[in-house]
Amino acid sequence: MMEKKLLVAASIILNLIFTIHILYNKDSTTWNPTWTNRAALEAEDAASVSCSGHGRAYVDGLGALDGNKPPCECNNCYTGTDCSILVADCLVDANSGDPLFLEPFWMQKSEGSAVVESGWHMMSYSYYAYGSFVSQELEKVIRKLHNVVGNAVTDNRFVIFGNGATQLIAASVHALSRTNSSSSSSPARLLASVPFYNMYKNQADFFYSANVKFGGDASALKESEDNDNVTQVIEVVTSPNNPDGKMRRAVLDGSNVKTIHDNAYYWPYFSPTTHPVDEDLSLFSLSKTTGHAGSRFGWALVKDKAVYERMKTYINLSSLGVSRDSQLRALQLLKVVLGDGGEEIFNFGYKTLKKRWDTLNKIFSMSNRFSLQTIKPEYCNYFKKVRDFTPSYAWVKCERVEDTNCYEIFRAAKITGRDGNVFGSEERFVRLSLIRSQDDFDQLIDMLKKLVPRGADSI
Amino acid sequence: MMEKKLLVAASIILNLIFTIHILYNKDSTTWNPTWTNRAALEAEDAASVSCSGHGRAYVDGLGALDGNKPPCECNNCYTGTDCSILVADCLVDANSGDPLFLEPFWMQKSEGSAVVESGWHMMSYSYYAYGSFVSQELEKVIRKLHNVVGNAVTDNRFVIFGNGATQLIAASVHALSRTNSSSSSSPARLLASVPFYNMYKNQADFFYSANVKFGGDASALKESEDNDNVTQVIEVVTSPNNPDGKMRRAVLDGSNVKTIHDNAYYWPYFSPTTHPVDEDLSLFSLSKTTGHAGSRFGWALVKDKAVYERMKTYINLSSLGVSRDSQLRALQLLKVVLGDGGEEIFNFGYKTLKKRWDTLNKIFSMSNRFSLQTIKPEYCNYFKKVRDFTPSYAWVKCERVEDTNCYEIFRAAKITGRDGNVFGSEERFVRLSLIRSQDDFDQLIDMLKKLVPRGADSI
Repeated sequence: MMEKKLLVAASIILNLIFTIHILYNKDSTTWNPTWTNRAALEAEDAASVSCSGHGRAYVDGLGALDGNKPPCECNNCYTGTDCSILVADCLVDANSGDPLFLEPFWMQKSEGSAVVESGWHMMSYSYYAYGSFVSQELEKVIRKLHNVVGNAVTDNRFVIFGNGATQLIAASVHALSRTNSSSSSSPARLLASVPFYNMYKNQADFFYSANVKFGGDASALKESEDNDNVTQVIEVVTSPNNPDGKMRRAVLDGSNVKTIHDNAYYWPYFSPTTHPVDEDLSLFSLSKTTGHAGSRFGWALVKDKAVYERMKTYINLSSLGVSRDSQLRALQLLKVVLGDGGEEIFNFGYKTLKKRWDTLNKIFSMSNRFSLQTIKPEYCNYFKKVRDFTPSYAWVKCERVEDTNCYEIFRAAKITGRDGNVFGSEERFVRLSLIRSQDDFDQLIDMLKKLVPRGADSI
Repeated sequence: MMEKKLLVAASIILNLIFTIHILYNKDSTTWNPTWTNRAALEAEDAASVSCSGHGRAYVDGLGALDGNKPPCECNNCYTGTDCSILVADCLVDANSGDPLFLEPFWMQKSEGSAVVESGWHMMSYSYYAYGSFVSQELEKVIRKLHNVVGNAVTDNRFVIFGNGATQLIAASVHALSRTNSSSSSSPARLLASVPFYNMYKNQADFFYSANVKFGGDASALKESEDNDNVTQVIEVVTSPNNPDGKMRRAVLDGSNVKTIHDNAYYWPYFSPTTHPVDEDLSLFSLSKTTGHAGSRFGWALVKDKAVYERMKTYINLSSLGVSRDSQLRALQLLKVVLGDGGEEIFNFGYKTLKKRWDTLNKIFSMSNRFSLQTIKPEYCNYFKKVRDFTPSYAWVKCERVEDTNCYEIFRAAKITGRDGNVFGSEERFVRLSLIRSQDDFDQLIDMLKKLVPRGADSI
């Protein structure tokens, strides 16, 4: 009798427990996705593929069409289905400026940085509400970012978007080379001081505009006094510079001189923010701001309305603006950056590069066979302290008399850098990329440890 | 006693039901998203904003940065927070070729067409696994699409991507104008038969390459026999043509002549698939394939390796390829299209345009003041039947002697078309876009019903 009563009581209590449990779940405000589910599942599936910390899988990776789980895309020198196998005797990639040093940051920010695009997102040619190719929200966020970081003045500036700073370089050169076409029949001369990013030369040579020709070293022109003050001159000033990371100013001046400031690297990762850039034409790139080189998004801050209109026409005729997909993505990424005023990402990036430079400096101090660029620390308005420069690239000089081709010496030591002559400089220099993945950097250091101390006494 | 036994039985049965319910939910394979949840919620929120069927809200719409629900972006002539207010006496937009006629299709395909991009998706400059700027999976899907639709031969063709067919036009012109630079010192002449899409002329004029000049009407050159057979000539053949939708062939030939085939409109929406295009250089655009003009994605099928390499260099130097975000999106959209061999989308698009042309023809038959282009129906290999052409645009001619400026006549009737002289043709013609949203078309019809029958007897 007692047991029966206990069982009945237990049953009733169980009823109550179940009822509360079910009511709780009904009352819970957990939202469940509907039409985004398939795509979300695919993305989370790809993200969950284990690549041993030496790679990652993408939703559109090879085999994605066949419904297979996407494969790992391994960092250089790693292989195997899960990137766990280190290839012996592998060639280190220190060539391109792929900004993968920021990938770990974005992997931590998975929730904030994800983007979901509906199938009908932005099908129009223009942002309908205001008939343009430019997202107003993205422009707002870019202005805000510059103000927060303090690396550029945006007041009284037009903002123009491009498919990477790459397209904006071409647009700027074109816009500036035609502005005073009536005053000179010779093509404008495009110059930059050695060592310079060779894209400026390559574009000018290849596009073969009737209005502009690449004219070589700006500093050489200055010294030669060959500037006739009539032929239009366009100087590209890259600051911080690629390849050597140094801050630069224009070397040419005069009423016939126009200047393009390529400030793509002017972020706290690479250099102190000494002052906000306040020029007529400044270029920036998402590649070096958030690390998203693949999105092909850059912007220019332009003072002069006529120049702005010409650049806009150039971008419009070249490609009818920039992909709305890239603009949506850039907006989300920059929202994450701005969420804490850039503190987390800039600290992450700067600390990563500081550590890499400390390691590099230590190795290079073991020998006088090779030297690195040295730049005096300066006060950084963003970090509010004096800090080292931590450039994207090591600009290495082979000091030994007989080491005439630095690229080949490093290549023989299984390190692929970029030849100094690509930057208009001597073959005694080689550029080594320091902004790639941690794997790339670790491999670089392993090889440098073998190369640098060799023949340490001879110069 | 009986009641007590019944209650106990009920309690036990209830417990069994609850147990089964909970076990079922645990066993259920319902997947719950984690890090994609925020972005998915935002996207579904935006999609759920009611715009009365006369607009839509985008995740990155105005105010998105302030955390507000994105606003409706209304179709032309609609206003109000939910686009429910029709503006009286509104100017109809029949100008641009915004392919919004396909928007309803994509809204139905919400699940299949959504894309989720992680914050670390494709940060690299290149598709790492094979060091290029081109998604192999996307290339595969494009080749498959052409084979299924039967509108182009892809065997022995290189595929090259561009930021819209727009960028590929410039790349093609550049590539073809330099191929035989040694044989002629004059710039190549770029021509197209009137009426032609004015982008060809605008690009050539604006970019002002030393190697190519726009030379006007190809047909006029043919008739004038001014082709010296030495100066390089590049003819752009748009087929179906913009603005009149007619199939076209090259008019010029000779060893000094190169041809670019702009086949952007060669899809079952607009014309019968009479044969697969089998040319040296064919251009296509996502804008006219799926309707996603905002994604800025196009591709070229190229036979000659040297031409392909030059075009690739052009795209690389212009913009380091095409956004990986756009490529991911294009892949997903084309996967949906290919899911049923294109049947649903091409039928949807064709039927929409057929209905629009039937309505248009009916109105224009009420008067001989204006005429439309007429094209004989042909057998379509895709739909496997003889079918009408259903061009994107009405190419309207003002037949009355005194109606010399057709654009102005339509403008006065509150319809903004595109002036015939923009296409190198006479002002007696005006182009009216028929591929915009249903609202745009309905408004166009309302205005045409007032305009067309007026003065029906006079010519």
